[in-house]
Amino acid sequence: MKNRRGVICFKNPPSILGYAAVAGDMEANGPLKGKFDKVFQGDMDGEKSFEKAESKMQLFAAKQALKKAGLSPDEIDIAFAGDLLNQCIGTNYGLRELNIPFAGIYGACSTMAESASERQFRFPLEYGGQRPLTAQWTATAAGAVVLGKQNEGKVNVKAACVGEIIDYQIKDMNNMGAAMAPAAVNTITKFFKSTKTQAEDYDMILTGDLGQVGSAILSQIMDKEGYPLKGKHSDCGLLLFDRQRQDVHSGGSGCGCSAAVLCADVLKRLETGKLKRVLFIATGALMSPTANQQGESIPGVAHLIFLEGNIGHGNCD
Amino acid sequence: MKNRRGVICFKNPPSILGYAAVAGDMEANGPLKGKFDKVFQGDMDGEKSFEKAESKMQLFAAKQALKKAGLSPDEIDIAFAGDLLNQCIGTNYGLRELNIPFAGIYGACSTMAESASERQFRFPLEYGGQRPLTAQWTATAAGAVVLGKQNEGKVNVKAACVGEIIDYQIKDMNNMGAAMAPAAVNTITKFFKSTKTQAEDYDMILTGDLGQVGSAILSQIMDKEGYPLKGKHSDCGLLLFDRQRQDVHSGGSGCGCSAAVLCADVLKRLETGKLKRVLFIATGALMSPTANQQGESIPGVAHLIFLEGNIGHGNCD
Repeated sequence: MKNRRGVICFKNPPSILGYAAVAGDMEANGPLKGKFDKVFQGDMDGEKSFEKAESKMQLFAAKQALKKAGLSPDEIDIAFAGDLLNQCIGTNYGLRELNIPFAGIYGACSTMAESASERQFRFPLEYGGQRPLTAQWTATAAGAVVLGKQNEGKVNVKAACVGEIIDYQIKDMNNMGAAMAPAAVNTITKFFKSTKTQAEDYDMILTGDLGQVGSAILSQIMDKEGYPLKGKHSDCGLLLFDRQRQDVHSGGSGCGCSAAVLCADVLKRLETGKLKRVLFIATGALMSPTANQQGESIPGVAHLIFLEGNIGHGNCD
Repeated sequence: MKNRRGVICFKNPPSILGYAAVAGDMEANGPLKGKFDKVFQGDMDGEKSFEKAESKMQLFAAKQALKKAGLSPDEIDIAFAGDLLNQCIGTNYGLRELNIPFAGIYGACSTMAESASERQFRFPLEYGGQRPLTAQWTATAAGAVVLGKQNEGKVNVKAACVGEIIDYQIKDMNNMGAAMAPAAVNTITKFFKSTKTQAEDYDMILTGDLGQVGSAILSQIMDKEGYPLKGKHSDCGLLLFDRQRQDVHSGGSGCGCSAAVLCADVLKRLETGKLKRVLFIATGALMSPTANQQGESIPGVAHLIFLEGNIGHGNCD
């Protein structure tokens, strides 16, 4: 039982009825070009502040996902949502007009799997600071998913694993991938042990967002732990941008990053049968600039969901 | 069905196995004197920062609740927790050593009912600013509850209602009670309608934290809506402090306030049969200082839980 803590295999797995992804123009010019429901222009899409622009993106993503699900806001029982702005205002202001019972969540970049915006972790654009190669680029993006009953949609959420807070005492805010990788290892290995599965049992093991540096660390530790990822691993931070062409250093990050990659691309591939069984592990770095300035380390957390296309079949028990 | 959105009557209601409340010395010298599990001294209890002190309070409350439940951290499946610091660091750093699967939540002062710290909403102590009489005093406090199966503990959580984001366009950060009262009205009336109950069916209808001003507004609107509270209403912001003796203006607030009042006093009265049926409605103001400076209004949210002592009986369906 102890090993299964946090692992939930749903007896009646919810299915995905609709989803939507929005992104900024830099993200829309990356490898996922043409796959977003809407591209927001410039840094603020005509809004007066980053905060208002982020609220607008979240609201659009939520409305679009509802539209694609053929549902109106008053047919939704509960909305779970969050972001990385102080006091989650991107979400609170974005969703207030929908009048849906609302449960706010906080998980930094792990938000998408626990249920998307980041400003202060990124230097002001005007600052022009040098960023080390381990740093990641905060994505301007948001994603939303509408859940319904089993098999109503083409993709079921078969299981979930709620992650523990793991702290390897990394203190470098420019190396969050390294801070989050151990949390991903903890969650993935726990899920593997609990479900008696391994990397071969899945078509894709998708983390968000470890970037290049964190992904390499993940692979190394998984090998050591006896659960090699065997070519099944991808990372949302690496899928969103083309690191050769776009100056994003170790890859993308931010809670919009994994949300957008999942909703712009991966869910579509699950619906069409190109992918059947996907583990989506959204990772979050649970510090704040204040904590970092006080010399605190960066704890990580990783939440996992197991997605399966209807065309396929299988069991997580 | 539409009226029931967000209302959940549990078929297998969880029960409360243990709980704990901690507070600062000002709170501990109020009407609930002697009822806290621990009193933290001064503003920071010997810690180097407010943030570290808040993490310490949360960790103590969690450990103490576990101790009183007779459980160790590794017997807990999932922890839900949050606070009001940027990026919820009070919680993240406080709970990291427990190694419990962790789902972060955000609901401002409504956090306790969705699943407790506040710094920037309060002027620096050194500032000595004049506070208007509608302003509330941020409590230095935290509460924690351990849930188990039905009837294992002496108090069952029979039902819940997840609130909607309600915005009456209040923009005065010193009048959050007025901003949150409409959200409380929305949640309480929805619960009453859905369960076909009214104020008389409960021993206490406990909001947190509307303060004096918000409580008066709540009563007025409930009367108008045809659901008078008939002397059953209390407010955690008014129970924590003695407004005659302590300079807290409209009453206490902060997500630690309702958490501490619930865990220091109300749960004990439910356990001993002095109270049987309690509606606990934790209210939150979903703005941030940034949003307020940008001229945004203050949206409110209120989440409700229905608590019933084992000695009593009843049904919410």
